[in-house]
Amino acid sequence: MVARLTDGLREESLAALPAWSYEPGRDAITRRFLFTDFTEAFAFMTRVALIAEKADHHPEWSNVWNRVDILLTTHDAGGLSTRDLQLAAAIDALVKA
Amino acid sequence: MVARLTDGLREESLAALPAWSYEPGRDAITRRFLFTDFTEAFAFMTRVALIAEKADHHPEWSNVWNRVDILLTTHDAGGLSTRDLQLAAAIDALVKA
Repeated sequence: MVARLTDGLREESLAALPAWSYEPGRDAITRRFLFTDFTEAFAFMTRVALIAEKADHHPEWSNVWNRVDILLTTHDAGGLSTRDLQLAAAIDALVKA
Repeated sequence: MVARLTDGLREESLAALPAWSYEPGRDAITRRFLFTDFTEAFAFMTRVALIAEKADHHPEWSNVWNRVDILLTTHDAGGLSTRDLQLAAAIDALVKA
């Protein structure tokens, strides 16, 4: 069972994920990704899906054509946990690569 | 350019898509799909993505683990068109098969 991050640890950790926004209402982080078209967006989603399944930690996400919105939180922990930070970093690595 | 359905034609057409709900505010149709787990949900999404790309008509959709919510409307037509009805029927065929 993974624990929800303390406020101090969360602030420190999110400094390393500047592209993500913190949503206090959900104790979650979100990021919007924009691509050239649907095939680029869905290719990205497929890579994220494989990472998420391997980590057994899944995003809440939506897609409209070239746009993908991802929200990460840990339902079992009742908020943001280290699992979200790890998944966010792995997703960031996909678009940086 | 595809035209928005008239009220009469829309009501008649939606009778053939009983699993879909009409959303007047968006002039759109929506359906929720539930699967065993994330891999089943994402496998379904991948099949829908290929159909959508081939039809050059894409859904607004979201996924949370085993759940996929799909909304169909035609932005170019300012509402529901025959393209949405065709895509809805093709998606229905995936889960019936």
